Amino acid sequence: MMENSQDMIPEPALRRLPWYLAYVSLLRERRVEYVSSTQISRELKVDASQIAKDLSFLDIKGKTRIGYEVILLEHKLEEFLGFRREHRAVIVGAGSLGGALMQDSGLTRYGLDIVAGFDVDPALVGATRHGLPVFHVDTLAERCKAMKVGIGILTVPVEYAQDAADRLIEAGVRAIWNFTPYRICAPEGVVISNTSIYAHLAVMYNRMEDKGGGKADR
Amino acid sequence: MMENSQDMIPEPALRRLPWYLAYVSLLRERRVEYVSSTQISRELKVDASQIAKDLSFLDIKGKTRIGYEVILLEHKLEEFLGFRREHRAVIVGAGSLGGALMQDSGLTRYGLDIVAGFDVDPALVGATRHGLPVFHVDTLAERCKAMKVGIGILTVPVEYAQDAADRLIEAGVRAIWNFTPYRICAPEGVVISNTSIYAHLAVMYNRMEDKGGGKADR
Repeated sequence: MMENSQDMIPEPALRRLPWYLAYVSLLRERRVEYVSSTQISRELKVDASQIAKDLSFLDIKGKTRIGYEVILLEHKLEEFLGFRREHRAVIVGAGSLGGALMQDSGLTRYGLDIVAGFDVDPALVGATRHGLPVFHVDTLAERCKAMKVGIGILTVPVEYAQDAADRLIEAGVRAIWNFTPYRICAPEGVVISNTSIYAHLAVMYNRMEDKGGGKADR
Repeated sequence: MMENSQDMIPEPALRRLPWYLAYVSLLRERRVEYVSSTQISRELKVDASQIAKDLSFLDIKGKTRIGYEVILLEHKLEEFLGFRREHRAVIVGAGSLGGALMQDSGLTRYGLDIVAGFDVDPALVGATRHGLPVFHVDTLAERCKAMKVGIGILTVPVEYAQDAADRLIEAGVRAIWNFTPYRICAPEGVVISNTSIYAHLAVMYNRMEDKGGGKADR
């Protein structure tokens, strides 16, 4: 286990680490052996001293003039980011977006092990989606406890968001990954992580308008 | 068309508007007629004066003591956020996450009209996924131009991210919704919107560690 140097990393740095990981994985595939912060900086347009600082949170040392060993850096980044541990999760709301996420095998590579979906829709309950069982949401608490689920992924319609979150909290999850645009209330000890993809859409549309107007062709 | 008051809205305000929309839609379903900033504030834990200020960017006036008409506010929010216009998009990378997004019919409700997917995988090219055709990426430029596509959704493996982005830009898209963890380079006029769901995972894992340790049961 790592010591708790991890506790002190600021969120902006934490958010940059996956960029470095993406680039380093690419270098590893290209069989590059070493990479310096300067090289990463040139590629990703992040200040080299910032990169060195961000990487100082990891248990790795670069060599002067040569830089970091690519394979080791990739490993340390994955480890630090939690991608090498297994985090058990369930999806509440196995409809459109929920079903989509159950299908995204990419999530496994990032340490997320989705074990089941939950819904109230009789057309979904009892079936499997992409090999995963869908259960009735009334069985959420017992099943989450039995399967030792730590993360609940929330993809219900917005009007059920808080209710579904309450059920997940009761079921003992330690984190909720909220894909609804609803602002979930949760007790102190539960982590709420919001990924509002529709809000991202709104921001993108708005910036498109700013750059050249809605109808203009470029 | 709206006047360009929209141009001046700061991004944090823009990101809050979808929260209000989610709540207002919920009220509309419950047949509530009016809502005040104070009520929204109580529900969403956002300062009431902040809400009033955010909503001042919209072409709507609240009535003293009564507040905003729910149906009108919902409509104005959807309009302002671009959810009532149709934005044509293609997906590049019709694999796991890309295929998942092609399946997410929820996106249509937010104004995103995905018309096709593109890939290089012979197993995918020529097939349909969830009713949408998948074409070879070599035909991207001609098809995007023919279908007047404005948005490219990037869900390729990270090592192809920049190349796929370059092809989309050449195909004339005005915005790229980047789901890869790669930092895309694009000319000035192209909007890049990053939704790095794996980075969100990393942040969530990290915050779970902070609150009670990786293995601890609550």
